[in-house]
Amino acid sequence: MPYFLGMDGGGTRTAAALADERGRVLAQAEAGPSNPHKVGFEAAQRELLRAARRALRQARLRPRALDAVCVGLAGADRPSVHRRLLAWLRQSIPARFHLLTSDAAIALEAAIGDSPGIIVISGTGSIAYGRNENGRALRSGGWGALFDDTGSGYDLGRKAIASALRAFDGRGPHTRLDAKICRALGLRDVTDVLLRPLAPREIAALFPLVLEAAREGDSVARELCEQSGQQLAELALALVRRFGWRRRAVPIACAGGVFQASLSVRRSFARHLGSGAPRARIVLLRKPAVQGALALVRALAADRLEIQNS
Amino acid sequence: MPYFLGMDGGGTRTAAALADERGRVLAQAEAGPSNPHKVGFEAAQRELLRAARRALRQARLRPRALDAVCVGLAGADRPSVHRRLLAWLRQSIPARFHLLTSDAAIALEAAIGDSPGIIVISGTGSIAYGRNENGRALRSGGWGALFDDTGSGYDLGRKAIASALRAFDGRGPHTRLDAKICRALGLRDVTDVLLRPLAPREIAALFPLVLEAAREGDSVARELCEQSGQQLAELALALVRRFGWRRRAVPIACAGGVFQASLSVRRSFARHLGSGAPRARIVLLRKPAVQGALALVRALAADRLEIQNS
Repeated sequence: MPYFLGMDGGGTRTAAALADERGRVLAQAEAGPSNPHKVGFEAAQRELLRAARRALRQARLRPRALDAVCVGLAGADRPSVHRRLLAWLRQSIPARFHLLTSDAAIALEAAIGDSPGIIVISGTGSIAYGRNENGRALRSGGWGALFDDTGSGYDLGRKAIASALRAFDGRGPHTRLDAKICRALGLRDVTDVLLRPLAPREIAALFPLVLEAAREGDSVARELCEQSGQQLAELALALVRRFGWRRRAVPIACAGGVFQASLSVRRSFARHLGSGAPRARIVLLRKPAVQGALALVRALAADRLEIQNS
Repeated sequence: MPYFLGMDGGGTRTAAALADERGRVLAQAEAGPSNPHKVGFEAAQRELLRAARRALRQARLRPRALDAVCVGLAGADRPSVHRRLLAWLRQSIPARFHLLTSDAAIALEAAIGDSPGIIVISGTGSIAYGRNENGRALRSGGWGALFDDTGSGYDLGRKAIASALRAFDGRGPHTRLDAKICRALGLRDVTDVLLRPLAPREIAALFPLVLEAAREGDSVARELCEQSGQQLAELALALVRRFGWRRRAVPIACAGGVFQASLSVRRSFARHLGSGAPRARIVLLRKPAVQGALALVRALAADRLEIQNS
């Protein structure tokens, strides 16, 4: 019987799901982060392999039992990254077919299948990805924490610290974020962040404090949530314009921790999206993205097997 | 005859000036960057020592000829940094008196002497520093590139790249910054910045491109210059409020590469400053900050020698 492996490699963790040809999920496993831009190629490969092996062990399958493997990986749409990782994937996780695509592509598949649409993901980073009926794919955003990732958890965490520093100086208004950040990071005052090198993931992990402060009525935090929704809408609207979908009722899916956790970000997103794409339908991705990898790999294998058998 | 050494340690370079008791400058020397937050303690100490030795050699003085040394160093106002570096300074550059203060304090001294006032510095980073008639000193900003340094060269360089990425995606308006950045960094398109780790200093070095594009009429670049001036004015206005100087004709000095190079940043700064401190007098620092270190060290030595001799 053919077996399929789907994997979702992100900046925080790697998820694997293994299914049989009828689509029954036999195993689900996890490993550490595998975004090669964030953890490097070696660590990415190690975690992908770890997740795959865990799934195979759980399903009590031998390593060579797989028919097809699909990996959705942040940053895998760059040609140099794609070439290198696909070659490695073929060697390290043997199967008849391999598909390496972006994390956004599998999330889009999980959210709306293979119909035209856009997905906006806001987790540690942020990106929008869309595909039209001809299979043409476009992206916007997702260029990393230093210069981009607007509206993401990282962006919210960084701006929370920046706002607390401005309040400390008397440059900006008082905000509850100051006390919350100091408590979360164990700082005497917020200027001590200078003495504590923080990884992007640790900064992104502060975003729930912004949502909490916004719920408590803090106006600085509310403004940050409003901005986040607007910037995420801008990611989607750039694709709406480039696809020529301004008057079309396309589905626009929202995925990732920030959207999931914050009603106020979702509201701001919907409001700003409405101005440029009034007929768009917003859907919230509720399935894990790894299900999209599984769907893609089964479709791929079905096509290929059909071609081989015909 | 007593000899005095003043030093200015920044994120880009270290300057040293050596003078005799009449204030005649006998030597001026330079070394690499010595901001301990940016290059680490070891490198900072190495470059400070290098600058001091070069100045002594130039003046043909033996290492123990100094009466007093003043070092103005970015980040030296944090107690932990101050303690550690002052102990090292006493051991490594022998003299009767040592003064270790912030780079902002010596720049303020160079700009307006010991009268009450504020200095705003925008170079690689940004900070405002002020002192009232009672000697009370306050700062605002300068909390580093990751969370602060608004309006600085780094901030302008980072936002230039961010704007080019937004234009590339169709999220933001077209800007001449895109082509300028690609040419300066040798990129095929601006998304290749992801493959090129850039140090903060390299990002800050892009700020002249923003000024150039603004002069050519690029509206994105103009907006960035406008923002920079506003954010630098906010740094000063926070101190104006805290000192209670809203209605006072205090001098506010501007220093650093961004102010020096950009008329449009200075104009925006003046306009925004005017709203909160209408009577403030803006002065442009034209002397090197190291002259402030020299002035402070001579004043210090004069006081101390007087006390010792009385």
